[in-house]
Amino acid sequence: MAPVITLTTDFGTDDAYVASMKGVILTISPEAAIVDICHSIEPRNILQASFILSTTHRYFPEGTVHVAVVDPGVGSERKAIILKTPSSFFVAPDNGILSYILDEFCPTSPGVSPSTSINMERRKLGVELEAIAITNSEFWQHPVSTTFHGRDIFAPVAGHLSLGTPLHRFGDSVEQLNVFPLPQPFRDNSGNLDGCILHIDHFGNLITSIRDNDLPGEEFLIEVCNQRIQNISRFYAEKEGLAAIIGSSGYLEISLKDGNAASALGAKISDLIKISRTIA
Amino acid sequence: MAPVITLTTDFGTDDAYVASMKGVILTISPEAAIVDICHSIEPRNILQASFILSTTHRYFPEGTVHVAVVDPGVGSERKAIILKTPSSFFVAPDNGILSYILDEFCPTSPGVSPSTSINMERRKLGVELEAIAITNSEFWQHPVSTTFHGRDIFAPVAGHLSLGTPLHRFGDSVEQLNVFPLPQPFRDNSGNLDGCILHIDHFGNLITSIRDNDLPGEEFLIEVCNQRIQNISRFYAEKEGLAAIIGSSGYLEISLKDGNAASALGAKISDLIKISRTIA
Amino acid sequence: MAPVITLTTDFGTDDAYVASMKGVILTISPEAAIVDICHSIEPRNILQASFILSTTHRYFPEGTVHVAVVDPGVGSERKAIILKTPSSFFVAPDNGILSYILDEFCPTSPGVSPSTSINMERRKLGVELEAIAITNSEFWQHPVSTTFHGRDIFAPVAGHLSLGTPLHRFGDSVEQLNVFPLPQPFRDNSGNLDGCILHIDHFGNLITSIRDNDLPGEEFLIEVCNQRIQNISRFYAEKEGLAAIIGSSGYLEISLKDGNAASALGAKISDLIKISRTIA
Repeated sequence: MAPVITLTTDFGTDDAYVASMKGVILTISPEAAIVDICHSIEPRNILQASFILSTTHRYFPEGTVHVAVVDPGVGSERKAIILKTPSSFFVAPDNGILSYILDEFCPTSPGVSPSTSINMERRKLGVELEAIAITNSEFWQHPVSTTFHGRDIFAPVAGHLSLGTPLHRFGDSVEQLNVFPLPQPFRDNSGNLDGCILHIDHFGNLITSIRDNDLPGEEFLIEVCNQRIQNISRFYAEKEGLAAIIGSSGYLEISLKDGNAASALGAKISDLIKISRTIA
Repeated sequence: MAPVITLTTDFGTDDAYVASMKGVILTISPEAAIVDICHSIEPRNILQASFILSTTHRYFPEGTVHVAVVDPGVGSERKAIILKTPSSFFVAPDNGILSYILDEFCPTSPGVSPSTSINMERRKLGVELEAIAITNSEFWQHPVSTTFHGRDIFAPVAGHLSLGTPLHRFGDSVEQLNVFPLPQPFRDNSGNLDGCILHIDHFGNLITSIRDNDLPGEEFLIEVCNQRIQNISRFYAEKEGLAAIIGSSGYLEISLKDGNAASALGAKISDLIKISRTIA
Repeated sequence: MAPVITLTTDFGTDDAYVASMKGVILTISPEAAIVDICHSIEPRNILQASFILSTTHRYFPEGTVHVAVVDPGVGSERKAIILKTPSSFFVAPDNGILSYILDEFCPTSPGVSPSTSINMERRKLGVELEAIAITNSEFWQHPVSTTFHGRDIFAPVAGHLSLGTPLHRFGDSVEQLNVFPLPQPFRDNSGNLDGCILHIDHFGNLITSIRDNDLPGEEFLIEVCNQRIQNISRFYAEKEGLAAIIGSSGYLEISLKDGNAASALGAKISDLIKISRTIA
């Protein structure tokens, strides 16, 4: 069975950076199926990459190697790591890019809104997880540049991992990884809920930090960008105008039928969303 | 021989929606070669997806599974279908997205210009075609979301189809599919021809609804966006300025040497093109 | 081992042009791993394609077939060629698109700045290279359009090459290929160096025509777009503001920490860069 390797970067597709990573991978692991997750992460937006990767990794085959390279500190002292979860491998700089992934296994302290201006913290790995710091240069592409570890370290390591090279061959175990505190909805005493917009998708849907099981019962009022929405719709086309939906990744989404909710509302990442119980 | 699965969507490539479909496919059909046809279909533009798919499907190997997901009605009562032609499979919502494909096998009533505001009609399948409504949830990804059947229904069904699962296992036969009336050139009594712009490509070439064998003889005058063009050129670089060419999909195209015809002319989809016999 | 075929074009990804090439390739060479290098080459910008391809080809497995199609002369008398180097094959129109590749094996006369307005010249192939003119239509997709040789000639020829079909089967040997004179840094008598901007990448980094071993010793002053930069930094995050770095392809690059150097400086392709020895 061909191993699967995915790529998530802020490299864009106008240069050959992504292609060079693929060339290196195929030289080492010729049968690998390489899947692009996203290369249009905003330059240096570590948290955006982390979120995007978190919405898709569970749909890949067991043993998939996910490479995530948004790496403004390339060439500096920041570590390169491999994280092994029960189902997958993640190969990345240790700069918070795995925050959302780690949050699934060992929840982080909540932050207020998604931002890399909040200080990173060290997070001890849960019992299901293993991680190593990539230090064994035997598995790298030489000469190693100081500006493109995606090609010279992350891609060849992913290639060798996909061939079954054991984790400990790549470097020594680490017990902690860097994570950003992630935005968690805040619940007040009256059961109201404050969340924020985590992501705006290609259709202009607003993906919020509130999840299905955070919602207060069946009837409530949603306020976002000075608009009010009553209750949850089941699918995009169900009602005219703005609708609130549980999206395909389990987050509460705001959408606009036949339109773009983000443009219509002037919404942006980190904007507040409030949910209150309606008075009958 | 690795099965081929193609993807045509309006999902863009800034989110992980396409990647999740690929992960689901590779989990089911690990040897599949997945080819992106286009993910920048304008949101909800069913006819654009239909046209794009119609220009390329015949260049793929026999047995290729083409997945087309422009699906504003996802989660509603609209059907999901598989269409089997003599050479390929198409997996899609039954919302008119296969109009151009069906038109190759069982021509539809002509419309005036390409528009989904024209009412869909039911089209009986020709003798070479088979179709089923996808209803057997055994082949789906669970839990099934109400907002992303691309990932939860179309992708896994395509994966199983590519493994050779027989058509009838996915659901019951249907005799008719929804299609949009397609723009057909109109010929008046004096042999003049009225057509329209179907598509504007990346180079700004105007692809029209007029085909090679629609053209009136060897000498004629083309009028489009208040410009006149005499006769057909053989290739893009043959003459300076605007040229009319039979493009690579068999449609009459208007191009501008070393430039962008659409920008230069202010042309847009549905704009009229007139062809008249020239008076010697 | 699956053969690798790469694609570099100016076709964009909004049409199905690239997909049709892939369909044709997979029909002929079902096990081929097809890698997109770049499809957002500016329409008809032959030198940009040449540069992009030159930064990545050496990272691909031995025997890789690189297809490059920026081809404003498609359908005219311009030749189609295959170039065989010690490690790879290149399939392309003979319009200068292999200038940077040929320059690695048989250096061209230097030009001043990168421009296709400079006249092409004929370059005799070095001893390590072989080339043929593609003339044997047995390996083409029929009928052959006059506007899309990417699909009808280059893709099927690449597919057959990847299966091991010998070079001479595709056509007769040629001794010379067309190349553009490439920009080479100019060194004056006092050891100062004049170069230019070859490429601006996705991050706004300015990639210049000056290479590591062109640099005059350890201490020097860089002038670009009316800004001065002292000496070389080792990696992007090392210092605040503008920095000069030896980038991952061996060219001197100008970057801006946490920003976009091209936007900040208003820099564009062909802009001059001057390097002078600093007076201590």
